[in-house]
Amino acid sequence: MLILELTNEECIEMLTRLSFGRIGCSRDNQPYVVPFHFAYHDRHLYSVAALGQKIEWMRANPLVCVEADEIIDHDHWMSVVVRGRYEELPDTPEWRMERELAYSLLQQSG
Amino acid sequence: MLILELTNEECIEMLTRLSFGRIGCSRDNQPYVVPFHFAYHDRHLYSVAALGQKIEWMRANPLVCVEADEIIDHDHWMSVVVRGRYEELPDTPEWRMERELAYSLLQQSG
Repeated sequence: MLILELTNEECIEMLTRLSFGRIGCSRDNQPYVVPFHFAYHDRHLYSVAALGQKIEWMRANPLVCVEADEIIDHDHWMSVVVRGRYEELPDTPEWRMERELAYSLLQQSG
Repeated sequence: MLILELTNEECIEMLTRLSFGRIGCSRDNQPYVVPFHFAYHDRHLYSVAALGQKIEWMRANPLVCVEADEIIDHDHWMSVVVRGRYEELPDTPEWRMERELAYSLLQQSG
């Protein structure tokens, strides 16, 4: 079995191209993992979600982990794992431009 | 958008059929998510892994979350999220039968 490490550029290329993965959050050390769509841009992953368990947990603990993968078969796969912090873009005038950027990126990423 | 909840039987059917998903673990409230192969059997998910960050973290905190999904397109997808506890099957005589069951299940699940 041969395992190669992806370069930083390859990880970014995968995140940009796939725009889909799973996000893990944690509360009281209980992990929670759900699929989600995102758009990669300039070291940020943008996403839209309705208020629910995921948002509530990330508000309580902003540490997150995102995983995206491409599986051809059991022996041929690529996987990117990134850690980050949840940040909310509130629906207020000072965040308008950031929100518009996020929506525009998400529309492009399909 | 129409979201339907899967029954318990449908979740088990999906886990059995897919035998692939992502496992989330957590240490000091930092989540960590990686892809993994498993075999479902009788309310357990069996898997084999080399010693690494995932195993170390699960030994320190056995709370885990497993996600498996089937994505047709943006609007047609199914996702199963299960919580559980990590349990190790040590390479000792008293665990031999459990380990053999696990290997046999994993071979069948492809």
